Amino acid sequence: MLPTLDFFYEFASTYSYIAAMRIARLAETAGVTVRWRPFLLGPIFKAQGWDTSPFNLYPAKGRYMVRDCERQCAELGLTFRLPQPFPQNSLLAARVACVGLEQGWGEEFSRAVYRAQFAEGRNIGEATVIGEIVGSLRHDGSAALARAQADDIKLTLRAATEDAQRHGIFGAPSFIAGSELFWGNDRLEQALGFAKRLTG
Amino acid sequence: MLPTLDFFYEFASTYSYIAAMRIARLAETAGVTVRWRPFLLGPIFKAQGWDTSPFNLYPAKGRYMVRDCERQCAELGLTFRLPQPFPQNSLLAARVACVGLEQGWGEEFSRAVYRAQFAEGRNIGEATVIGEIVGSLRHDGSAALARAQADDIKLTLRAATEDAQRHGIFGAPSFIAGSELFWGNDRLEQALGFAKRLTG
Repeated sequence: MLPTLDFFYEFASTYSYIAAMRIARLAETAGVTVRWRPFLLGPIFKAQGWDTSPFNLYPAKGRYMVRDCERQCAELGLTFRLPQPFPQNSLLAARVACVGLEQGWGEEFSRAVYRAQFAEGRNIGEATVIGEIVGSLRHDGSAALARAQADDIKLTLRAATEDAQRHGIFGAPSFIAGSELFWGNDRLEQALGFAKRLTG
Repeated sequence: MLPTLDFFYEFASTYSYIAAMRIARLAETAGVTVRWRPFLLGPIFKAQGWDTSPFNLYPAKGRYMVRDCERQCAELGLTFRLPQPFPQNSLLAARVACVGLEQGWGEEFSRAVYRAQFAEGRNIGEATVIGEIVGSLRHDGSAALARAQADDIKLTLRAATEDAQRHGIFGAPSFIAGSELFWGNDRLEQALGFAKRLTG
């Protein structure tokens, strides 16, 4: 059994986008299984007194983040544009990702949502956009949107967010290897290295 | 003439410590001249409504920072301990660094201050500690402490902090290559790469 790394990602998060586009190949090379765990940063930000992204609350940081993501993405051959509005409402995308993960298309869906938002400038807060993304993966968009409203799916997402808080997560992306927390796309390689040393 | 990278560092900043211990060798390899620019984060934090370090304001982030620095330092063979109190009062150290930089011992002094604070657990807010550090470098501690109170030295430090704000700097360490801002020890290599492409 391969060692496991928990990948906590928020669909509205720019650096989660970059990590999501990189993690599969890096994990394969490292011999680590990734557990994709969509969660919501909103409740965590709210608990520390923020009602929006820190990139909006602190404009200098926000301007820097855009330029930093442009440079990071350019080096990786990824397109980057800040979507409007920012941050986007990620609740529906996260619930549909939970549906996809139980049905085997969650990873592919997650990457497609990130591409739609940060490369194509689409609004992932809209149900039609999410339905179209599911459809583009040759799954039933309407069925996925309906299933996303089921109580157990809502609970799965809520549990992931509570789990994130219990692990001390305060931003995204975050990675958990055993009892070690790693924050940020910049720590992906180090997190995989720690996971690799764990027994599977 | 070699291309230049401006290195903005704050003595109370844990990640500035790591960058300060790495930058000389990496810059030499890259063929880049580093301009060491001590500045104060306090006025910049105050302008965004913070009266202390964000690592104190947001405890989950603060706990993570300590563990992250332990891991980063372990990989680099550096000792790390969070000093008490944290953050330390860095005003005097920054002024003496300005003195040292005009007299040719500023870089060595800066590294020694970081080592004293983050490896040896000394309080760099105390004048006796700063004086001893200058003395350990075979310079006159009392003369440096006296010179640090001169108006032009105070102005040099204030100008560096204002310059940082003009560049959009919101944290430390930060690097400026031409018109590009890079934030964080994690961006040191990329900043040197950008600086290298500038004409000297």
